[in-house]
Amino acid sequence: MDLQYGLELVGTFVFAISGALAIREREHDMFGAGFTGFITAIGGGTLRDILLDSYPLVWIGDVKFLYAILAGVLAAFIFPNFLSRLRKTFFLFDTLGIGFFTVLGVEKALSLGVRPEIAAIMGMFSAVMGGVIRDTLTNEIPILFRKEVYASACLAGAVLYVVLDYFEVDRNYNMLISMSLVISIRFLAMKYKLSLPRLD
Amino acid sequence: MDLQYGLELVGTFVFAISGALAIREREHDMFGAGFTGFITAIGGGTLRDILLDSYPLVWIGDVKFLYAILAGVLAAFIFPNFLSRLRKTFFLFDTLGIGFFTVLGVEKALSLGVRPEIAAIMGMFSAVMGGVIRDTLTNEIPILFRKEVYASACLAGAVLYVVLDYFEVDRNYNMLISMSLVISIRFLAMKYKLSLPRLD
Amino acid sequence: MDLQYGLELVGTFVFAISGALAIREREHDMFGAGFTGFITAIGGGTLRDILLDSYPLVWIGDVKFLYAILAGVLAAFIFPNFLSRLRKTFFLFDTLGIGFFTVLGVEKALSLGVRPEIAAIMGMFSAVMGGVIRDTLTNEIPILFRKEVYASACLAGAVLYVVLDYFEVDRNYNMLISMSLVISIRFLAMKYKLSLPRLD
Repeated sequence: MDLQYGLELVGTFVFAISGALAIREREHDMFGAGFTGFITAIGGGTLRDILLDSYPLVWIGDVKFLYAILAGVLAAFIFPNFLSRLRKTFFLFDTLGIGFFTVLGVEKALSLGVRPEIAAIMGMFSAVMGGVIRDTLTNEIPILFRKEVYASACLAGAVLYVVLDYFEVDRNYNMLISMSLVISIRFLAMKYKLSLPRLD
Repeated sequence: MDLQYGLELVGTFVFAISGALAIREREHDMFGAGFTGFITAIGGGTLRDILLDSYPLVWIGDVKFLYAILAGVLAAFIFPNFLSRLRKTFFLFDTLGIGFFTVLGVEKALSLGVRPEIAAIMGMFSAVMGGVIRDTLTNEIPILFRKEVYASACLAGAVLYVVLDYFEVDRNYNMLISMSLVISIRFLAMKYKLSLPRLD
Repeated sequence: MDLQYGLELVGTFVFAISGALAIREREHDMFGAGFTGFITAIGGGTLRDILLDSYPLVWIGDVKFLYAILAGVLAAFIFPNFLSRLRKTFFLFDTLGIGFFTVLGVEKALSLGVRPEIAAIMGMFSAVMGGVIRDTLTNEIPILFRKEVYASACLAGAVLYVVLDYFEVDRNYNMLISMSLVISIRFLAMKYKLSLPRLD
């Protein structure tokens, strides 16, 4: 459990960096970058918890998450060029991050007693809606509609988690298997430029 | 009451189809279309219930709404051309739908004890905010600002409902009269290309 | 306390006018302008209260705020040209308004028992998020990312308030000092065209 808590803080830190750097490329100032890092890091979990009426919100109840975000934003301020060169590393971190937050989101929703179908949606929301809110605020087409395999990979992992949970697979194995599915789909989609079919 | 419940599910199904098809024209993939259908169908009621602190949200407490949305999205996937040709039919359904959801939204708000002025706003939100959130996410000018008589027709019907309710008009008659007002305004505005005055 | 309540209603009225006039310049109709005035006036406080789980929302529990908004929107309808010429007056009112709502937002959050760091963020949200939601709905780059000193001035005032509150400075003095900081930063930034550094 301590490991998980530590990983949540690290994931929040990484999401804040990537949010702050995302906006940097569109020429905003320090405050705009910090705000964007903040929204990216908290948006998904906040939406999930509002939809599920689960209060206090994680970052309001536990101020360590706020400091993890501040640290991420400061890192983006101090080392912008260094961090920007780590594009591949960030792709890796971001992919690990969405896999991890998907599974945590599913678990939290299940622990609040909602049905598995709803829990799967909440898992996906946890992982991707921070980026969607960020893109909406900055007038970008949301990541959801651009890199389509992004959110659908999360949904696939979330569905797998609730299915394995139904068959009483051990939690730790289930986390690893479901996260691996998210990560594998995204890597394969990126490598082979896969995308979902369109309607036409 | 069973009739009303059935109509709510049908209305959700229709909103999901029109949401999924709306995005199709902007060349998104299956996941994007499904997500958009989902948001269109649940957005208005979800916003209303969050503002009124009414939990669980309808689609989280009753999974049938989720299946109605899935069915709508699947229908849009399987019969896109057929459904797209039904443009006039959809205009009819959509108009019936916003009238119906406006009145249901007002009733729900009144049943939660808010003042009639607030209930009227909540009725309009129930009917139109799903489309507004969809348009915001997909970087469209929200429908509210394009087809202006759209949301104002809902507000007119919602105000009529609370006025008639104040004068203790029978609920069933009130629903029919208020829905008819929404539907009539929208049809007449469309037929005679009416719009509200601008400020200038 | 009566003075404060009166100022809140006046502030809501002014925000509704400026919201309704903001959209007027983009050629929307009466309903669109009214909706935008409404969102601008209630958005920030509503987001704050949803995040803090504080219900009923201010404008839902006390219908006077709704009437202050309606009055503002009507004023914008009836005297659009007169009010538009008052650009400098509005800049003054808007600046006083964001200073005032920042401090009220911090106080409300503190009274709900959250940590000072969170309360400072909530103060800034109260003041600026109505405008951000308005800009997002109307496909503008949010004010937050355009006039960068706008939101950061609020954050500075909010941080000052929680610091002085920690040192037990009298509430009335604290309000005046913290509001003055917000207002001074914004005026100086406007006069000398100051802006925060970018990351590059």
